[in-house]
Amino acid sequence: MRFAGIYHPLVTPFRPDGDADEGAIARNAARYVATGLTGLVVLGSNGESPQLEDDESDRIIAAVRDVVPAGRPLLAGAARESTRATIAACRRAAALGVDAVMVRTPAFYKNMMTSEAFVQHFTAVADGSPVPVLLYNVSMYTGVTLQADAVATLSRHPNIVGLKESGNDMQLLGDYLSASAGQEFVVLCGSATSVFTALALGAHGAVLALSGLATEQCLALRDLMRDGHYDEARALQQQLLPLGRAIGAQHGVPGLKAALTLMGFETGAPRLPLRPAPVAVVSQMRAHLAALGLPVVS
Amino acid sequence: MRFAGIYHPLVTPFRPDGDADEGAIARNAARYVATGLTGLVVLGSNGESPQLEDDESDRIIAAVRDVVPAGRPLLAGAARESTRATIAACRRAAALGVDAVMVRTPAFYKNMMTSEAFVQHFTAVADGSPVPVLLYNVSMYTGVTLQADAVATLSRHPNIVGLKESGNDMQLLGDYLSASAGQEFVVLCGSATSVFTALALGAHGAVLALSGLATEQCLALRDLMRDGHYDEARALQQQLLPLGRAIGAQHGVPGLKAALTLMGFETGAPRLPLRPAPVAVVSQMRAHLAALGLPVVS
Amino acid sequence: MRFAGIYHPLVTPFRPDGDADEGAIARNAARYVATGLTGLVVLGSNGESPQLEDDESDRIIAAVRDVVPAGRPLLAGAARESTRATIAACRRAAALGVDAVMVRTPAFYKNMMTSEAFVQHFTAVADGSPVPVLLYNVSMYTGVTLQADAVATLSRHPNIVGLKESGNDMQLLGDYLSASAGQEFVVLCGSATSVFTALALGAHGAVLALSGLATEQCLALRDLMRDGHYDEARALQQQLLPLGRAIGAQHGVPGLKAALTLMGFETGAPRLPLRPAPVAVVSQMRAHLAALGLPVVS
Amino acid sequence: MRFAGIYHPLVTPFRPDGDADEGAIARNAARYVATGLTGLVVLGSNGESPQLEDDESDRIIAAVRDVVPAGRPLLAGAARESTRATIAACRRAAALGVDAVMVRTPAFYKNMMTSEAFVQHFTAVADGSPVPVLLYNVSMYTGVTLQADAVATLSRHPNIVGLKESGNDMQLLGDYLSASAGQEFVVLCGSATSVFTALALGAHGAVLALSGLATEQCLALRDLMRDGHYDEARALQQQLLPLGRAIGAQHGVPGLKAALTLMGFETGAPRLPLRPAPVAVVSQMRAHLAALGLPVVS
Repeated sequence: MRFAGIYHPLVTPFRPDGDADEGAIARNAARYVATGLTGLVVLGSNGESPQLEDDESDRIIAAVRDVVPAGRPLLAGAARESTRATIAACRRAAALGVDAVMVRTPAFYKNMMTSEAFVQHFTAVADGSPVPVLLYNVSMYTGVTLQADAVATLSRHPNIVGLKESGNDMQLLGDYLSASAGQEFVVLCGSATSVFTALALGAHGAVLALSGLATEQCLALRDLMRDGHYDEARALQQQLLPLGRAIGAQHGVPGLKAALTLMGFETGAPRLPLRPAPVAVVSQMRAHLAALGLPVVS
Repeated sequence: MRFAGIYHPLVTPFRPDGDADEGAIARNAARYVATGLTGLVVLGSNGESPQLEDDESDRIIAAVRDVVPAGRPLLAGAARESTRATIAACRRAAALGVDAVMVRTPAFYKNMMTSEAFVQHFTAVADGSPVPVLLYNVSMYTGVTLQADAVATLSRHPNIVGLKESGNDMQLLGDYLSASAGQEFVVLCGSATSVFTALALGAHGAVLALSGLATEQCLALRDLMRDGHYDEARALQQQLLPLGRAIGAQHGVPGLKAALTLMGFETGAPRLPLRPAPVAVVSQMRAHLAALGLPVVS
Repeated sequence: MRFAGIYHPLVTPFRPDGDADEGAIARNAARYVATGLTGLVVLGSNGESPQLEDDESDRIIAAVRDVVPAGRPLLAGAARESTRATIAACRRAAALGVDAVMVRTPAFYKNMMTSEAFVQHFTAVADGSPVPVLLYNVSMYTGVTLQADAVATLSRHPNIVGLKESGNDMQLLGDYLSASAGQEFVVLCGSATSVFTALALGAHGAVLALSGLATEQCLALRDLMRDGHYDEARALQQQLLPLGRAIGAQHGVPGLKAALTLMGFETGAPRLPLRPAPVAVVSQMRAHLAALGLPVVS
Repeated sequence: MRFAGIYHPLVTPFRPDGDADEGAIARNAARYVATGLTGLVVLGSNGESPQLEDDESDRIIAAVRDVVPAGRPLLAGAARESTRATIAACRRAAALGVDAVMVRTPAFYKNMMTSEAFVQHFTAVADGSPVPVLLYNVSMYTGVTLQADAVATLSRHPNIVGLKESGNDMQLLGDYLSASAGQEFVVLCGSATSVFTALALGAHGAVLALSGLATEQCLALRDLMRDGHYDEARALQQQLLPLGRAIGAQHGVPGLKAALTLMGFETGAPRLPLRPAPVAVVSQMRAHLAALGLPVVS
């Protein structure tokens, strides 16, 4: 199924003056292109997209597209709070050559974000986007949840080709799979701590911050499950848990940037109000990387 | 591992006058003894235990123990809000012959229920209980969550032999498995909608209301996974989802009692403030049972 | 209006062996009888009622009734999870001479606790109780909320004479007041940090742990507001905030028992899984009491 | 105290083609200038600011400033997710002549939004803003809460002159008042259903969608309380409750726009994913307006 696979959501590096550093993200991307990763995502939650300006976002897409060859899917986050701004963002991303856009649920007016509203929003976005759309639910950050009944409707739209779910509620993920069964529609897992269970349940892949650190292990996990080696996959998942948790709910983008920096990627500090990981967290990251045999270069 | 397997948590039947009907629960239990189910649980959440008096609870245990032969594990809920009342309930249950007690987290003083408090509570309970203790977390009803750090400590107690987790958060279940790895400690899944993922993740069994309706299918699911047939197991889980959800979060004990009644079990109405499932829900249950080919006798 | 006023909810003292100490609670009660407090409440949340046995509860009511003269209202908590056990508790309390019962919402089967279920439950309780019933909502501990539409119906029942609301959501309190306007129905505030605003909004009184410590100040606050001296009342409320918060959401029953002990009341330790306030909290309580000029005797 | 008073937060009208209609908002503003309202707010939550582009925001400020005379405070929302974009927005708003900016808490990376992060963010914003800053907490939409300890620090910043709190938790509002006591710092209430209690507690004013409909009543409420007529104020608050609730948590911006349209203001439909109030809600609004004797012109 198209867009199945393992993706890494790139962080957005910032220069010491605070500007987005598109050269650095391109160099990071180039390192991943040399791996077996299916593709890359820019401007996701790990890319600090809610904190970026439109022009910065455009430069980032352009810079990464330059180093990601045509055969490798490049996805870009393109969510905005209003439907029309979201469509505009999808169009700009498409013009810059992304293979698909990943569109997070709008979330400000929480009590108005019913399934009906989501269906109307995403239908308009998919109608207006020149490239395929993946839905994106991340309740931990948005405080709203895209329900399975909306997915049942939306998965039938010819330009909506999948979704990414970032939580650990496997009943919800299972409901998404049921709701979209029989459609050309990928369900991707966005949580490193749940990737084993999500794949076991039938998810078609994952978008994992962890895959930018433990790249080979994440790919091996996918392969083991594809080949039915559940016991080895489960053991591998258990090994990956501490690092996955540390760069996820525990220390977030600052933790992820710290770990990437230790492995020689260029990240800069997060943009305020996010703050750099404190020294103690950097030490934890060092230990987590070492425990997985990952090369620490700084 | 001891206490691994598939258990059914019996509902508590009530007579038309509202009294608990220990004859009826014994007759229901006898039907399950004739199946391949590992064992039975009395006085769980599905057994309306928070609504029962101590003497009713005792009569129910005694009546069910009479029909469950010694080789088949019989577990009983024994939670109370205070530590000392919990220990007393464990002792009474032990005296009546249960193989183990299942002890839900205390939950009234929510902001005081830290891991430290849970460790002190469950340690005292395990010290005082003549029979092995299984921890029981059901956040949906209690509003508190037993954290994995507490399980790491408690799983080392010689008289704490496992836990049941009733939710769908597979990160939490995975954390429980990690926290208790290497111990003689079963992790049981309490949610019909997550049993496939829980078993995939390494859970040792399940306590399933659903197994009192779709008994053979639940056992088949366990066997398929044990033998590595994940694709068939996953398909079976999908078939079981609608009924599992209907008797779980959707319609709760009233829904479960309605479905059991349709299959010829004796349940009576739930005890107030729980109210009998309305006619429309009974019809849904009938349809769910029919979809799974289960025999409806009334 | 009947039952308007300021009440103190007594803690339940325990002996070193862990048994409830009805002699001690009677001696504490006698001290309050000598004050201007309207009345007393036994077996509330601050009285650790969810942790008490029925026979202990009965002994506590009897002992306190002995020292509270007929003219002074004595209220008793009488909630249980089932409707029938609640009615039984109301009858026992009535037989022991309480003036009214205070009945907390049932809360275990949270998703089933609709307004319809609450109306059916409390109507049956009020029908069955020989003494007047006050509804009791404490969402912080129960995780459920009695909605105003249910109060609109229930306030019309001749044997339901009021409610106590323990939170700080003044929209909810205002809705209760609107819903019961025109009825013989008191709305009492259960939060020391909101008593000023609740009285300003039209609440008829309060049930305050704080009134067992800063008794004269709580009564003065009520009097100031009754006489329209809002500015002085507001200033007094501000002075009372730190202690009110400390014995409420912050340190709960253990904090309250520590403060009462410092003032020479007999409390004993809380019953497990509640644990005694640590030394640092006792020191804080000492400082809070001193700041209000309250006499510390130990 | 500067910025004390009653403000109306203007909705943002849209043309049939979906563009922001700055002519319409200026005409609406002009009507309010003719009333006794203290001042106006643009680009708040009711102004659909999260759905507006920067250039639209600028045109709206300019158009409204044109009709609001120098003596009347005009406040503008200027929050963005990143600190630097927020500062930029404050500078643009200042250049366009607003008297102060109202800066909502950043909220995307919820688990990172500690008091420490908020202090760093708002300090940088206040340092960078040419005009005074009001903090803005609206947990219902953001899912985060600015805690009182952060307000204690921030209220000491010379360029932070107040805050607006949009919820109904009067303990939080009281804590804000305590934390900022003695500073030149206004605490404004943003909830029509809590304005009476907030003012009773000592709040210095309110930003009320309701004041754009029931303008005279909102001003009368303020005056009654200033003059110590609490009983009449309370009765007035009760009358205002149904409309206040309907345009707040119940029907939000779509409900507010419907009510304003009925009174002859120009609003247009909300911007998607917000959708126009359905016919039934419009009818409710008509009834609520009529109940308050407000003139319905369409």
